[in-house]
Amino acid sequence: MSLDLAAVRALDASDPLRAFRDRFDLPDGVIYMDGNSLGPLPRTARAALTRAVDDEWGRGLIRSWNDAGWIDAPRRVGDRIAGLIGASPGEVVVADSTSVNLFKLAAAAVGARPGRRVILTEAGNFPTDLYIAQGLAAVLPAVQVRAVPADEIAAHLGPDVALLQLSHVHYKSARRHDMAALTTAAQAAGALTLWDLSHSAGAIEVDLNGCNADLAVGCGYKFLNGGPGAPAFLFVAARHQARLVSPLAGWMGHAAPFDFVDEYRPAPGVERFLCGTPSILALTALEAGVEIAAAVDAQALAAKAKRLIGLFITEVEARCPTLTLASPRHGPRGSHVSFAHPEGYRIMRALIARGLIGDFREPDILRFGITPLYLGYEDVWRAAQLIQQVLDAEAWRDESVRQAGRVT
Amino acid sequence: MSLDLAAVRALDASDPLRAFRDRFDLPDGVIYMDGNSLGPLPRTARAALTRAVDDEWGRGLIRSWNDAGWIDAPRRVGDRIAGLIGASPGEVVVADSTSVNLFKLAAAAVGARPGRRVILTEAGNFPTDLYIAQGLAAVLPAVQVRAVPADEIAAHLGPDVALLQLSHVHYKSARRHDMAALTTAAQAAGALTLWDLSHSAGAIEVDLNGCNADLAVGCGYKFLNGGPGAPAFLFVAARHQARLVSPLAGWMGHAAPFDFVDEYRPAPGVERFLCGTPSILALTALEAGVEIAAAVDAQALAAKAKRLIGLFITEVEARCPTLTLASPRHGPRGSHVSFAHPEGYRIMRALIARGLIGDFREPDILRFGITPLYLGYEDVWRAAQLIQQVLDAEAWRDESVRQAGRVT
Repeated sequence: MSLDLAAVRALDASDPLRAFRDRFDLPDGVIYMDGNSLGPLPRTARAALTRAVDDEWGRGLIRSWNDAGWIDAPRRVGDRIAGLIGASPGEVVVADSTSVNLFKLAAAAVGARPGRRVILTEAGNFPTDLYIAQGLAAVLPAVQVRAVPADEIAAHLGPDVALLQLSHVHYKSARRHDMAALTTAAQAAGALTLWDLSHSAGAIEVDLNGCNADLAVGCGYKFLNGGPGAPAFLFVAARHQARLVSPLAGWMGHAAPFDFVDEYRPAPGVERFLCGTPSILALTALEAGVEIAAAVDAQALAAKAKRLIGLFITEVEARCPTLTLASPRHGPRGSHVSFAHPEGYRIMRALIARGLIGDFREPDILRFGITPLYLGYEDVWRAAQLIQQVLDAEAWRDESVRQAGRVT
Repeated sequence: MSLDLAAVRALDASDPLRAFRDRFDLPDGVIYMDGNSLGPLPRTARAALTRAVDDEWGRGLIRSWNDAGWIDAPRRVGDRIAGLIGASPGEVVVADSTSVNLFKLAAAAVGARPGRRVILTEAGNFPTDLYIAQGLAAVLPAVQVRAVPADEIAAHLGPDVALLQLSHVHYKSARRHDMAALTTAAQAAGALTLWDLSHSAGAIEVDLNGCNADLAVGCGYKFLNGGPGAPAFLFVAARHQARLVSPLAGWMGHAAPFDFVDEYRPAPGVERFLCGTPSILALTALEAGVEIAAAVDAQALAAKAKRLIGLFITEVEARCPTLTLASPRHGPRGSHVSFAHPEGYRIMRALIARGLIGDFREPDILRFGITPLYLGYEDVWRAAQLIQQVLDAEAWRDESVRQAGRVT
């Protein structure tokens, strides 16, 4: 069942994506399996940031809004992301955070479905997806949030539903929703769909237009490797753009921001969902990450992810009988693997101290990101060994319990 | 009337703030008078960004949320900004953009004043201030935006006003509102106040708590020198924090974001106005700019600004009779000077081509930022000479007219 070192090295030697690892600056002595939370540093990001800081900000100063193309960056990087998620140029912009973009699109969708009051979502969805919907319902008394278990979603698509808002891949389990089927069902019921691609974009194949999706958002700092707190993106299908209006009517979404007129008039295209002035430094780092993702063959990525995930699950299950798989064993799934253990928090602390970086999610989940761009077969094989060592020696007993206020 | 070169050099030689110029990396051959739009590069920002990229992101990876203090950055930098605007620690956080923060606080204020429907603001306010209020009114049908001329504001503070939302310093004219008097009048009428400090923070003395202000927002990339599109800040007076709730209920504003529970529960303090994950690279650059501002004596800054502004107006008026002053000649004012000319756009293009960087604002305004941290008396004296040369030679006739879509 378990492979030996020679076997995993043979897999790495024949890996067509092996060269991508060199595009990232990963520290020695670390197996990084938390790219689903924060992607590592692309080597090109350093040079791009130096150029943005020294040449564009330092030398060019205000002139760089035109001369260095800063003003076009939200759309330019958005168009590159569009190619990763099955969208067309002009359907995606980079802006704000995932949370802010969820608010914009959920509010716009509710506004486009008068007489329907429900935002339908999944119980246990990523918290910000739930919180943003709750916050919107708190200011729009006509709106209700209905969060139901995953297997009850389709049954709740009634005539009162304005919007079905779901994470494509679940942040904890990696379970993947059937975007095509749920989009079809939602639209048949008269609702719009809003997909959160935070755990999908850059990790797995996404085909928004192939699924006839309406709206989507996603994260820049996970599988797109855009840096800590990178700007997020949003997608509005071309057919909806003239009709949907952002409640966050900031000047960058105006049809003519530099006319400085008193009346808001939304831009004709997806730019109407911009709001304030974007961080150029953050966009610069994100662009470097997105450029790498755009250079990868999506099918090769999916094939390697499947083999890495299979190897990791097989090795961990063979070595660590006290861990319980908390993710789908086979597709449809995203690109991380979760195991449950009552001492999950302390076990993860012990693993991190030994150079295997994953993360912990309440109440008992050890989460490991499988990122084929920079992880090899030997990496996940060694990761399984490290987990076994920590569990067999009960090394986690030296770790402290979880502290409030710390990122886990 | 006009000073000679020896006289302005004597002023520079005795300038107690002269050393601050060396903290910025300004290009040779440029007189930079657009710090009111984008502040220049602090030399410390480069090293701080290198550390954030190489050490924190590259080496520390996800661990840096705790180990490098990323999770505390919005509050840490907010507390430093608090010291610049007369706020107390715990009343300011860095988050999102000015536009997004305007939405959060305007919506929270309207929610706290049930039965009152009006957001009162100034006609000709900075566009995003108007647009955000209009966008809020579009989704909250009970809310109305009333934009009136500056001298009619007090008369409109009736029993229907929920919020008085004003820019402290006008982006075009530099005219400064009397924050204390208008806050008192608004509160006497039962309204809350929301001050946009974008053209104030880092430029002039601001005393939010001395004025008993309720709410404020401000920009990071102008006089705080935080880099292009730097994150913005927001202020909520301590007395309001438990009562006001952000409509943008993102996970970073949750009382316990890493508990990952399904129900939103706002953080007890000003952190409830955080939303999504902040850009750490953008925050890093902003912190470098804010540290410089925090090191300056506010009274020395104000004294030098007054002298620079006086010198610039005197020199330009003496040399350029076709320009009309479009700013207050004396206080109360902000830290930029505007002149009107029908060919303002082309004149500014000609000035920029000659190394004097200001900007243009519709319909006819040449705008010059007076930033005592890095501008000296000789700079503004030479700037006036350059303006005279361009006007006397009509050199602007070689410049093209304004192009749509370009930042001006």
